[in-house]
Amino acid sequence: MTDSTHAAPAGPLLVISAHAGDFVWRAGGAIALTTAAGERAKVVCLSFGERGESARAWREGRNLEEIKAIRRKEAEKAAAELGAEIEFLDAGDYPLVESQQLVDRLVHIYREVEPAVVLTHTLSDPYNGDHPAAARMALQARILAQAVGYDAPGEPLGAPPVFFFEPHQPEQCDFKPDTLLDITPVWERKAQAMTCLPAQRHMWDYYTDLAKRRGVQLKRNAGPNLGLPADCQAEAFVRLYPQTTGVLA
Amino acid sequence: MTDSTHAAPAGPLLVISAHAGDFVWRAGGAIALTTAAGERAKVVCLSFGERGESARAWREGRNLEEIKAIRRKEAEKAAAELGAEIEFLDAGDYPLVESQQLVDRLVHIYREVEPAVVLTHTLSDPYNGDHPAAARMALQARILAQAVGYDAPGEPLGAPPVFFFEPHQPEQCDFKPDTLLDITPVWERKAQAMTCLPAQRHMWDYYTDLAKRRGVQLKRNAGPNLGLPADCQAEAFVRLYPQTTGVLA
Amino acid sequence: MTDSTHAAPAGPLLVISAHAGDFVWRAGGAIALTTAAGERAKVVCLSFGERGESARAWREGRNLEEIKAIRRKEAEKAAAELGAEIEFLDAGDYPLVESQQLVDRLVHIYREVEPAVVLTHTLSDPYNGDHPAAARMALQARILAQAVGYDAPGEPLGAPPVFFFEPHQPEQCDFKPDTLLDITPVWERKAQAMTCLPAQRHMWDYYTDLAKRRGVQLKRNAGPNLGLPADCQAEAFVRLYPQTTGVLA
Amino acid sequence: MTDSTHAAPAGPLLVISAHAGDFVWRAGGAIALTTAAGERAKVVCLSFGERGESARAWREGRNLEEIKAIRRKEAEKAAAELGAEIEFLDAGDYPLVESQQLVDRLVHIYREVEPAVVLTHTLSDPYNGDHPAAARMALQARILAQAVGYDAPGEPLGAPPVFFFEPHQPEQCDFKPDTLLDITPVWERKAQAMTCLPAQRHMWDYYTDLAKRRGVQLKRNAGPNLGLPADCQAEAFVRLYPQTTGVLA
Amino acid sequence: MTDSTHAAPAGPLLVISAHAGDFVWRAGGAIALTTAAGERAKVVCLSFGERGESARAWREGRNLEEIKAIRRKEAEKAAAELGAEIEFLDAGDYPLVESQQLVDRLVHIYREVEPAVVLTHTLSDPYNGDHPAAARMALQARILAQAVGYDAPGEPLGAPPVFFFEPHQPEQCDFKPDTLLDITPVWERKAQAMTCLPAQRHMWDYYTDLAKRRGVQLKRNAGPNLGLPADCQAEAFVRLYPQTTGVLA
Amino acid sequence: MTDSTHAAPAGPLLVISAHAGDFVWRAGGAIALTTAAGERAKVVCLSFGERGESARAWREGRNLEEIKAIRRKEAEKAAAELGAEIEFLDAGDYPLVESQQLVDRLVHIYREVEPAVVLTHTLSDPYNGDHPAAARMALQARILAQAVGYDAPGEPLGAPPVFFFEPHQPEQCDFKPDTLLDITPVWERKAQAMTCLPAQRHMWDYYTDLAKRRGVQLKRNAGPNLGLPADCQAEAFVRLYPQTTGVLA
Repeated sequence: MTDSTHAAPAGPLLVISAHAGDFVWRAGGAIALTTAAGERAKVVCLSFGERGESARAWREGRNLEEIKAIRRKEAEKAAAELGAEIEFLDAGDYPLVESQQLVDRLVHIYREVEPAVVLTHTLSDPYNGDHPAAARMALQARILAQAVGYDAPGEPLGAPPVFFFEPHQPEQCDFKPDTLLDITPVWERKAQAMTCLPAQRHMWDYYTDLAKRRGVQLKRNAGPNLGLPADCQAEAFVRLYPQTTGVLA
Repeated sequence: MTDSTHAAPAGPLLVISAHAGDFVWRAGGAIALTTAAGERAKVVCLSFGERGESARAWREGRNLEEIKAIRRKEAEKAAAELGAEIEFLDAGDYPLVESQQLVDRLVHIYREVEPAVVLTHTLSDPYNGDHPAAARMALQARILAQAVGYDAPGEPLGAPPVFFFEPHQPEQCDFKPDTLLDITPVWERKAQAMTCLPAQRHMWDYYTDLAKRRGVQLKRNAGPNLGLPADCQAEAFVRLYPQTTGVLA
Repeated sequence: MTDSTHAAPAGPLLVISAHAGDFVWRAGGAIALTTAAGERAKVVCLSFGERGESARAWREGRNLEEIKAIRRKEAEKAAAELGAEIEFLDAGDYPLVESQQLVDRLVHIYREVEPAVVLTHTLSDPYNGDHPAAARMALQARILAQAVGYDAPGEPLGAPPVFFFEPHQPEQCDFKPDTLLDITPVWERKAQAMTCLPAQRHMWDYYTDLAKRRGVQLKRNAGPNLGLPADCQAEAFVRLYPQTTGVLA
Repeated sequence: MTDSTHAAPAGPLLVISAHAGDFVWRAGGAIALTTAAGERAKVVCLSFGERGESARAWREGRNLEEIKAIRRKEAEKAAAELGAEIEFLDAGDYPLVESQQLVDRLVHIYREVEPAVVLTHTLSDPYNGDHPAAARMALQARILAQAVGYDAPGEPLGAPPVFFFEPHQPEQCDFKPDTLLDITPVWERKAQAMTCLPAQRHMWDYYTDLAKRRGVQLKRNAGPNLGLPADCQAEAFVRLYPQTTGVLA
Repeated sequence: MTDSTHAAPAGPLLVISAHAGDFVWRAGGAIALTTAAGERAKVVCLSFGERGESARAWREGRNLEEIKAIRRKEAEKAAAELGAEIEFLDAGDYPLVESQQLVDRLVHIYREVEPAVVLTHTLSDPYNGDHPAAARMALQARILAQAVGYDAPGEPLGAPPVFFFEPHQPEQCDFKPDTLLDITPVWERKAQAMTCLPAQRHMWDYYTDLAKRRGVQLKRNAGPNLGLPADCQAEAFVRLYPQTTGVLA
Repeated sequence: MTDSTHAAPAGPLLVISAHAGDFVWRAGGAIALTTAAGERAKVVCLSFGERGESARAWREGRNLEEIKAIRRKEAEKAAAELGAEIEFLDAGDYPLVESQQLVDRLVHIYREVEPAVVLTHTLSDPYNGDHPAAARMALQARILAQAVGYDAPGEPLGAPPVFFFEPHQPEQCDFKPDTLLDITPVWERKAQAMTCLPAQRHMWDYYTDLAKRRGVQLKRNAGPNLGLPADCQAEAFVRLYPQTTGVLA
């Protein structure tokens, strides 16, 4: 890693996810790095994951509205822990149905946030159709927000880079990481945010192990002489567009 | 582009190419950026391109030794223009035959230069077998140089990132750029270096056009609000290993 | 092939296809193996193939309702020959239009059948848009049926493996077989079922040849010493999800 | 998983690896399952990993012969723990140089062992050139051993399936698992075998975590109703050739 | 190039594009070759590109209807220059929303034009969602038009080959040219047609350079001895279906 | 198919294959079309297939020299039937070992034949390592023959297109046909040539069926209105380089 890795984020981070918990497991470190640097981070949850990712609550006999309220509360708490804003579009899950109305709401959010970086799901996920649906809408809205002719308040969007965050079974989603982000400095905050989601307790260990595993790869790819601590944590991402840069590193 | 793009290179640049002229067309900008920042850049030419890339000289009736001398002189001049060191391994071209002896020489060079960044050819090129051969040796030598048990002077190499530079027909070589490097600040030096290769005069325009074309893409992918000049020049690259970073940008 | 190949199917088979005849050509052997072992096999036809795969009947001047009736009758006869149940959703073809209503009907079927194995079309077919549309709905419904929160009768579905059956021009559909199923023991039943579809008589030879061709590959990949007969028949499939197993074979 | 997963292996297992430790981390479970079922398992190590995978010993000042002796002893101990035979071809590593002589030795081994299943490295590994070199030789030798005209003792080989075992950074090696092997019943033996390699102590935890992670995926892909224990361990593999089978499962 | 390259087009050309200007930049040469040979060429623009590709007009304060009128007029002029018919479906852009009604209109056009060759956008374009949407509808309509049972006037369509024309950033759209079309004989007409689109003046140079660049590749792939002029122009395409031919060339 | 498909071949055909029989099964039609048009066709067999493809002869107890003589005679007879010249380089098979000497011999052949079209094996074949080895040498030699500086008699080669012919298990070799060649006019000659290879009698039916199958695809992709006979035969190919053409068809 070169000096460039110590640079601060260049502006707001926008995270667009299908369900209420995704942003914590998959991008909690990236969010915490952004807010720790004093930049804005905004999380948009298209649904609460009320049908597809709340098995325990359903088994406990909760009804739909109760479950949505529980998941909202947990996600808000986790977002607060990470220093991020959070907004729920309540579009329903399992299935998350794509619509131009949803895309239009996302365009408005892009125009308001003016993100410097965008994070979303992978376009392929044979285990969860909501994830690609969210990603498709996130990408379509980004393009629409760039057009001066699109009727929404605010300035036309620039060209913020998009990163796909890590799915649960990366190889099956054709997720070949091209970016390993050192989240060691904010690991404790991510770990803390995970504890805000008690219904998915089995995920805590899983994503702690994953952070360590990606940390080993971070060290392996960064080389031995760069002052990384013995134990680091990392998150993996895949870029959609080419990196634009003034220096190779 | 974020502030990180103004960061200086972190150390020496090593360019490993098959023929004498490759480094100018494909990586002249990256080299000039490195040396302009006060860092060392070293170019290794495995051959002079004496058989495969000197058609005009053969047609003019020159013999092998004359052609090698001409190409050496031209490449040295171009390297000087770019501020780079240059070394010729004189391994022969068309075909460039892979050997452990050549790989071993490259290991010694890696250990001596301790590059922060490595540039070489793509692994696929259906128009030129020497290019993938050079790339395979460059990559194998990099791995060997990392092993403490490999018998060569110097310290085991770290894990410098490797970038493939742009081949002549990128799509046919499965070259999908993931890195667009702004070479506008050093464009004049690259243009000047190209003129040191008079035998390939038809390439001057071709690579001037290409730099402009990649510059348009640089602007398109960087977004409109980032202070890039109306006309920029860029070079395109593909990373072999994941980027390791402390910030998403 | 190891002993495991003589194991009986573990439970019901569910085949989801776009048109009335697909299940015979592409999966008749797999169906017959299942029913021969005493397990349930259910075929769901999203349409009758009344517009896109009934050219002869149209040329003979039949109207839409007549054609649907003909195709239903033929498919019922073929299913009976294979020992399978069959259900028609009559959703229309050319185009088969995807809808949440159709997906919901499939979810109900999954919950009722509780399949141990699922067969459907490939996700890519540049010759027939109905095939990928059927596959997308079959896959989405399978995921929804797994969610305890999805509102449909029955227990949440397990994780039955999904196999794509062979399209008409396999290479053009990126169909690279990873599973060759020995259908020799039930070949006669498949051949008999094909004769239930007289309007597509030209297909009888084509799929007889194909079974032989895949049989040759079965033998080639199984090895010469395994007691397969000189002439075998096979069907080719591609798995969507990793195989889970207790033994490598 | 169907009943077929409880089937016993059909015969000997042959593991061809580049370095002395590979078979433990990547295939220890598959080996132990084989020997637990009373079948033969043979490990062939093309080198000891004396240069490339013995960093600690070099740093401690050992010489080449000492290191080879240490690694041999450790690997023999691990193989014994797993119930496997082991043979070292001592072909050198970093680089492992391909040769027809080595391939010929492998042909002789194939003819002698008559494996029912073959395991080796992936054909792509940008971090370690010895792994693909070993895989290429393992595959070439398998094909040669099949030819009655190849001059080596024994009968022509059948067509044993080949599985690639998991590399250290799977996504970077284009390793998309298509087979998840339940190694829960023999996990303790694999764990014990890992402790026979004290020089790579940091790997113990890494591969314990990996087994758990692959175990979670095993359960996810096998479905919830199949009697797998709460915690399972798995190893991931990729098939080279199509599976031949008499039943879909 | 063999003699076959001097053959005349076999019949009408149909170009289906998302926006009003696409056909000029990407297929102007192919169109002009067709009409120069006395064959019909028809361009269908699904929208005017009024929102997404008319930035300058929006900045100048024009309203939606004005912009549509301007773009229609310009496109009509360019089509006339190329000798082509043009039809606007006015389906709206940014986003171009797919619908069965639009597809049905395209089916009617296919049945009326009976094209011998079809041109459309690539199926992947991460910079512009309208392009893949247009391509998907163009392909679906082509398949539907082939079915005798599809209710639209005219004869069932044959199987005209489909070519994807070149997107703005080819590598990012996975556009690997497999067909290089010599447009030198009609280059002046394409250049003239480009000048009919004054609002996109920056594109004139860009696509002039591109034609030259593809021309260099045309020469490189055709070989040196074939009588191509020193400077040629070309357009690049990708086939969707296999070429059917009576001669290899 | 357009009129261009009736064009005559533009010049000599060069077929470079690993073993003595390959050219008959995989390219017999293309060869016969060439010679029927009065053009030269030359077949180069790098080996006789004496070890890997002569199982029956080995089982009958023939020795190496006898087998080579038998295969030579059969192949010469088949070539004569097709009207082609044939040359054997006797480089050995199973394995066919790549060498610069062999490549150099191929360069000389290229310079002498000056082919207008080149046919060879696919670059991937997990069932037969000799096939990719032959292809790699064929491609390397073609590139070398283009260089004026390469020391061999004759003029520098142009840029003849290269087609890969069909392997035995096409999908497993990533063989996705992009060219379907109508060989109906010469089918009888190909069928006759196959009978010259009595030791591989089981292949006669296999490749007769394949020709029919590819013929069905030819008709499907050419469209119904083009005057192809009810039964046609075809051979499938994959291009390595982009097609250069003056007309889209």
